[in-house]
Amino acid sequence: MDSWASRGFQSDEGKEGRTMSLHLEAIEQRLEGGVLFASLNVPPLNLLDQTIIHDLVDLVQHLETSDDIRVIVFRSSVADYFIGHSDITQLDEMRQQLKRTMLEPSLAVFFKRLSTLKQVTIAEIAGRVRGAGSEFILACDMRFAACDSAIFGQPDAGMGIVPGAGAIQHLSRLVGRSRALEVLLGADDFSAELAERYGWINRALPNGELRSFVERLAYRIAAFPAGIVQNIKGRVAEITLPPDAELRTDGRLFVESTREPETQKRLKALFALGLQSSSDFEMNLGHALGELRSN
Amino acid sequence: MDSWASRGFQSDEGKEGRTMSLHLEAIEQRLEGGVLFASLNVPPLNLLDQTIIHDLVDLVQHLETSDDIRVIVFRSSVADYFIGHSDITQLDEMRQQLKRTMLEPSLAVFFKRLSTLKQVTIAEIAGRVRGAGSEFILACDMRFAACDSAIFGQPDAGMGIVPGAGAIQHLSRLVGRSRALEVLLGADDFSAELAERYGWINRALPNGELRSFVERLAYRIAAFPAGIVQNIKGRVAEITLPPDAELRTDGRLFVESTREPETQKRLKALFALGLQSSSDFEMNLGHALGELRSN
Amino acid sequence: MDSWASRGFQSDEGKEGRTMSLHLEAIEQRLEGGVLFASLNVPPLNLLDQTIIHDLVDLVQHLETSDDIRVIVFRSSVADYFIGHSDITQLDEMRQQLKRTMLEPSLAVFFKRLSTLKQVTIAEIAGRVRGAGSEFILACDMRFAACDSAIFGQPDAGMGIVPGAGAIQHLSRLVGRSRALEVLLGADDFSAELAERYGWINRALPNGELRSFVERLAYRIAAFPAGIVQNIKGRVAEITLPPDAELRTDGRLFVESTREPETQKRLKALFALGLQSSSDFEMNLGHALGELRSN
Repeated sequence: MDSWASRGFQSDEGKEGRTMSLHLEAIEQRLEGGVLFASLNVPPLNLLDQTIIHDLVDLVQHLETSDDIRVIVFRSSVADYFIGHSDITQLDEMRQQLKRTMLEPSLAVFFKRLSTLKQVTIAEIAGRVRGAGSEFILACDMRFAACDSAIFGQPDAGMGIVPGAGAIQHLSRLVGRSRALEVLLGADDFSAELAERYGWINRALPNGELRSFVERLAYRIAAFPAGIVQNIKGRVAEITLPPDAELRTDGRLFVESTREPETQKRLKALFALGLQSSSDFEMNLGHALGELRSN
Repeated sequence: MDSWASRGFQSDEGKEGRTMSLHLEAIEQRLEGGVLFASLNVPPLNLLDQTIIHDLVDLVQHLETSDDIRVIVFRSSVADYFIGHSDITQLDEMRQQLKRTMLEPSLAVFFKRLSTLKQVTIAEIAGRVRGAGSEFILACDMRFAACDSAIFGQPDAGMGIVPGAGAIQHLSRLVGRSRALEVLLGADDFSAELAERYGWINRALPNGELRSFVERLAYRIAAFPAGIVQNIKGRVAEITLPPDAELRTDGRLFVESTREPETQKRLKALFALGLQSSSDFEMNLGHALGELRSN
Repeated sequence: MDSWASRGFQSDEGKEGRTMSLHLEAIEQRLEGGVLFASLNVPPLNLLDQTIIHDLVDLVQHLETSDDIRVIVFRSSVADYFIGHSDITQLDEMRQQLKRTMLEPSLAVFFKRLSTLKQVTIAEIAGRVRGAGSEFILACDMRFAACDSAIFGQPDAGMGIVPGAGAIQHLSRLVGRSRALEVLLGADDFSAELAERYGWINRALPNGELRSFVERLAYRIAAFPAGIVQNIKGRVAEITLPPDAELRTDGRLFVESTREPETQKRLKALFALGLQSSSDFEMNLGHALGELRSN
């Protein structure tokens, strides 16, 4: 489980694995029993940057035509971080990566493609996951997290940014109006236990049980008839997924918000304090945002 | 509480009760204080079969024109099972029973009629309740369960079946996209405590408190002005109940899924292992479905 | 925190405060760091009466044109009661107050105006909050309550009344169909802990932590860029707030229900037992409603 033999897929044929055609730089892969274990690896903060977006674009395009893979488990190879948040210095480069696969480079609409894959996606979360990282896991079908280490946040409002990649849509539907407003407007950190109580994640599990729980569930679903799993997922999606038009609107508000002078000023102050450079700062981002006006 | 004087309704007039016109075979009845206690009794597994559907059709038709009954509490008279799941050998016979009361024999649409009764329906759950049994309780207005004995499951995906009687619709709305997908795609057993955390049921209560809690609530509602109760129930229904068209689509996907060769093969294997014949197997159905590919 | 220097706003300029133009009788005010602390003060039961409605109309009209205030925290200055419920003897007078600010005097639509303020509203709840009081806090953006003292109820059905000021709409969306029906039809009291489990409130907090938790959150949000906060709140509102037409229908059903002879009879019986006059009766209203038929 802990060693990754290759960055190409390994199947479970003969237990030695065969390397598949998809090569990724930022995502380690292992394929076993119809389950692709995809582990994000951009140390030290696992920021959602152009390298991860590049690989996610390749991966989603591959999955849209693949029949071998039934379930994808997303993990992190970086201690303390599942996905830190977006790399705010690479927003243009991330859009360029998205343009490889879509006319409009909307991260929200790209994540919706992730949500509507025929495969089942499970996020197995240890460490911090914030901002667009949180929006990535919200796009996944299910989310399970380690009680002791996982921390969730939508810090966007505290940075002067409108969350543009799905958090508004998903949280409003999953946790209801008032808890969504608390998460989105408070911009604070949430423990895994509280994220479970609110419905942000499926469940918080003890660190020592998380991996085996997720693997059991993933292999289980991978062994059920594929067409039935797809039908059920599709029916739930029709009821619960946000419309593309709403996601596009959020994406537009995000872009506009990043151009506001007040936002630019806040981001400059946050970068000076250690945003994206200091792990001390990033570890306590929720708290730091509340202190900003005194700087 | 434990003795049922008659399979006909007993009113509370003179405390001796009067027998009413509706006679049922699979459902024991007692009427007291405007509350009909209806206890499902098809041992040993309380499968949802043609006898229960026959009685539910008669009961729903009776309730649609009754003014004496204000609240119905559904219980089980069978140890370990509230409703096991559908009797898969009687799907055609169940449809024939539904044809007595509706042009299209859709269990989902019939359950919607249960949901839109002017009476208030409460499921008091001890023991296993899975598949169409879970869909039956989801159609009820409220669900309370015994902590120690109640087990919930939508095993359909593991059998190669699309849940067709409302689970997709109700769970998507009650527990949200990601927990609905976990329940429906994982096809595993859930404890009453976890079902409460997810919102599948109203509350899990200690075994010794369940019956008195439900009776108190039922008598309470039965004593409130009938027109007001109906108005409130109707307004909540408008916001929260799934459209008939969606229920019909799920019902059609269910029928189609049962005809798939892979599903037929899975069901044959499950019957060989003890489905519907072995209580050992049925008690641990959730676990057994995960083991199926190794057989 | 405990002393209110004035019933006019105090800003935080020079820490001495300046008195602003809005003078209210039933609501104590303090403005600090962009946060207006508004404390309801109509002892002994803090019933939602014409004096509170008068002040809420003035306050909402003021907030709709104010830029100084970013967050409003609603509190109670009355021990044991946040808002008891509507003063049923003043329904006509309350409508007259609403007519000062709207053509149709619908409390539900007025509360929707509260929900769509550009400012963020937080209810900090200690003591009982029932009926239209519960509907007031449901209209607020967020709700936090004291574990030991807060009690929640929608006693309307037990009084023979259809809740007309938003409870049906908000609870159906926040807690789902079955828990909404339990709350609305059972008309019983709920502890803060249970209200949290159901999603009626954001969180229940220990009495000693409630005030500091809410203040920290309020000051935090007040320091984030105003335009961003408004954009996010507006986007969540589009997804989650009930349509005006539905609120109007509930309001109409409320008015009609109060005219029913059975309702008039129930209210008369309840007034005789201590409704609005006995704190003993009001403290245990949920229980008392269940006993009514034996009187």
